[in-house]
Amino acid sequence: MLSALDLARRIEAGELTPAAVIDLCAQAIAGHESAIGAFAALDVPRARQQAQTSGLAQQPLRGLPVGVKDIFDTVDFATEFGTSIYAGNRPRADAALVAMVRRAGGIVLGKTVTTELAFLNPGKTRNPHDPTRSPGGSSSGSAAGVAAGMLPIAIGSQTGGSVIRPASYCGVTGFKPSYRTLPTPGIKHFAVYLDTAGLFAARVADVAFAAAAITGRDLRVDRAASAAPRIALARTNVWDEASAAMQGAVEAAAKAAQAAGATIVEPAWPALLTDAYRAHAIIQDYEAFRVLAYEYDRHRDALSPILRDMLDKAAAVTSDDYDAARGITKRARQALADLMADVDVLLTASAPGAAPAPDSTGPATFNRLWTLMGTPCVNVANLKDPAGMPLGVQMVGRFGGDREALLAAHFLERALADLH
Amino acid sequence: MLSALDLARRIEAGELTPAAVIDLCAQAIAGHESAIGAFAALDVPRARQQAQTSGLAQQPLRGLPVGVKDIFDTVDFATEFGTSIYAGNRPRADAALVAMVRRAGGIVLGKTVTTELAFLNPGKTRNPHDPTRSPGGSSSGSAAGVAAGMLPIAIGSQTGGSVIRPASYCGVTGFKPSYRTLPTPGIKHFAVYLDTAGLFAARVADVAFAAAAITGRDLRVDRAASAAPRIALARTNVWDEASAAMQGAVEAAAKAAQAAGATIVEPAWPALLTDAYRAHAIIQDYEAFRVLAYEYDRHRDALSPILRDMLDKAAAVTSDDYDAARGITKRARQALADLMADVDVLLTASAPGAAPAPDSTGPATFNRLWTLMGTPCVNVANLKDPAGMPLGVQMVGRFGGDREALLAAHFLERALADLH
Repeated sequence: MLSALDLARRIEAGELTPAAVIDLCAQAIAGHESAIGAFAALDVPRARQQAQTSGLAQQPLRGLPVGVKDIFDTVDFATEFGTSIYAGNRPRADAALVAMVRRAGGIVLGKTVTTELAFLNPGKTRNPHDPTRSPGGSSSGSAAGVAAGMLPIAIGSQTGGSVIRPASYCGVTGFKPSYRTLPTPGIKHFAVYLDTAGLFAARVADVAFAAAAITGRDLRVDRAASAAPRIALARTNVWDEASAAMQGAVEAAAKAAQAAGATIVEPAWPALLTDAYRAHAIIQDYEAFRVLAYEYDRHRDALSPILRDMLDKAAAVTSDDYDAARGITKRARQALADLMADVDVLLTASAPGAAPAPDSTGPATFNRLWTLMGTPCVNVANLKDPAGMPLGVQMVGRFGGDREALLAAHFLERALADLH
Repeated sequence: MLSALDLARRIEAGELTPAAVIDLCAQAIAGHESAIGAFAALDVPRARQQAQTSGLAQQPLRGLPVGVKDIFDTVDFATEFGTSIYAGNRPRADAALVAMVRRAGGIVLGKTVTTELAFLNPGKTRNPHDPTRSPGGSSSGSAAGVAAGMLPIAIGSQTGGSVIRPASYCGVTGFKPSYRTLPTPGIKHFAVYLDTAGLFAARVADVAFAAAAITGRDLRVDRAASAAPRIALARTNVWDEASAAMQGAVEAAAKAAQAAGATIVEPAWPALLTDAYRAHAIIQDYEAFRVLAYEYDRHRDALSPILRDMLDKAAAVTSDDYDAARGITKRARQALADLMADVDVLLTASAPGAAPAPDSTGPATFNRLWTLMGTPCVNVANLKDPAGMPLGVQMVGRFGGDREALLAAHFLERALADLH
């Protein structure tokens, strides 16, 4: 994999040029893209040209190439949302996050494959660790592109589990920041209350570098003193749905962190958080039926059966159901803040297990609650199942505690590396 | 003005057809549009054709024509956001709210004039009560179109005061629902944390009918028993910025409501709400600098001086400033909930006074706080200044208490009508 932080440092030191990084990506793309299918659109020659822009190496992202999930508008690439309904769509503006990437000195190398309208119907992308498996979704191409060394940084989004789950399946770092830390205007929304933009990179320090460069926030972990975090091991209400290998990975992670000096506690799981887990689907379905009103009312036949069926059922969710789910959410956020009063982060599984067969992108079981809570999540990727497939665990921070979540993830990543 | 509720009832009773309503609008447009300039785009023949759709009269909006502020995407009209940057822009999809209007049986008659990117630079629209005055902004055409009898319903949006202020200036009912009650995907955002879609119609019962028809929520006031509301008269921290006529209007409204049986209290104004008033500009500026990154970075010369200058200054707002403003907001929302514990609504001014000259759309002084709080606001329009220009007062409900706010506004409207 390409380390964004390492590349940026070498560019900063004058050892590497932005154009040379485009060449590194181009080589990896030539070697792997035909098997992986991470890109919906790609323009290496234009990226090479943009890499010549003077002053790029002095900007925060130092001219690094970025892959952008194909639900974010781009003026210079078609933006098709993973559906034929939008074939050839050319937006008039960049999405806010894309414009911020460019403002920070990033180069958009290509658009990465998304599932249809960021729901569950898979695209063409395969898992770089095993092409007979799914990369996860909906940010399939962003996770696989980073895993295959074709991109140092990629943008994704999560409504259920679409950043953390593919990161876990592909063995890369995924970062879903606190809700609204990365702006969403110019994204194809699915459920506004949940849709959260996120980032993929090789390791925690890489994703933290990218997040800091794009937002201007103090999020880098490579320069920070690495204090041992206070961690709550959260098996949550869905622990039984994790594979034995995943349960073992979470417990191994807790032990490794503890051995490295972290405090581990195991607080009781508040019932309100289980209620909130269930509220996620109500909120998602109610909103999607309205947000996708145009596609459902005008292009129903062009939708996949899985999306059409979901929307058919979503029509029955009432405003009262929705308002009640919002009320549960509000109370659950307070319960979560209370649960985390004496810890820096929660540690839990990123997915039920390793990547499934490619006819599914896997379930968001271990992600929906955290998306609804709006809390920062970081997938830490240094674990494997018996078949050698990646297993990820996630560090969940307090709302607004993105820096603490990244620091704790960085700490765990090092603790796991020391085991090997 | 055209009463949406009255038209809908007559269609329901078979006394009127949707096509006949289009003709009523077309007559008013022929008479007034050249002087008022409410429309950015208009297609009466297509609306007439759509009015023939079978079954339309049985749908919730009964085939009524709707004007849509030109920051909402529409597939069948250019969507130009009030700026030459987007000249000829034809979106590939309808905004979610537009699709919901069509789903509910509404007909999009035209796009209404917005200020440039929904900020302060005025468009061509003039105030129907006095063409030498501003209609207010940024939902200029929506307010003026309803006031001139050219539209029974219009969609707008408010980030500072862009629904309630033009409603006040134009003497129509404006309804800014609780944040996110009407969906915003497909809107041209300015500051996501604040951008709120809203509605205009002649009277409170009309706007409540439209909101109920579009959302499916129980918001109609014409069928409800009208209990006397408990009202807190809120002079707020900006009372001194209201004209003598506006101060008199607010006090007259309180007296009329009291005479009609309402309880009026005058609680002390919490300092936290004054802090939150100041936080609004920080949040708006910080977000706009990011949300409008594409326009600012690529089309700076095409921006008006007033918008460019704001964005120039907004670049200096830090993440720490923004986070602190968000923190104040959270605490202020609780302080507001406490303030409203024993009342149904607050009563306050909708604007500093009557409509200004057309080189400005007037200040959002009396609106920013409520936008930030996310609470429902209804402009009640039956008051005048000594020159006979409309003055509006607003009923502010609890977050989620849209029905109570509409009921209280309906009560006040009747109480004021009884005075005349």
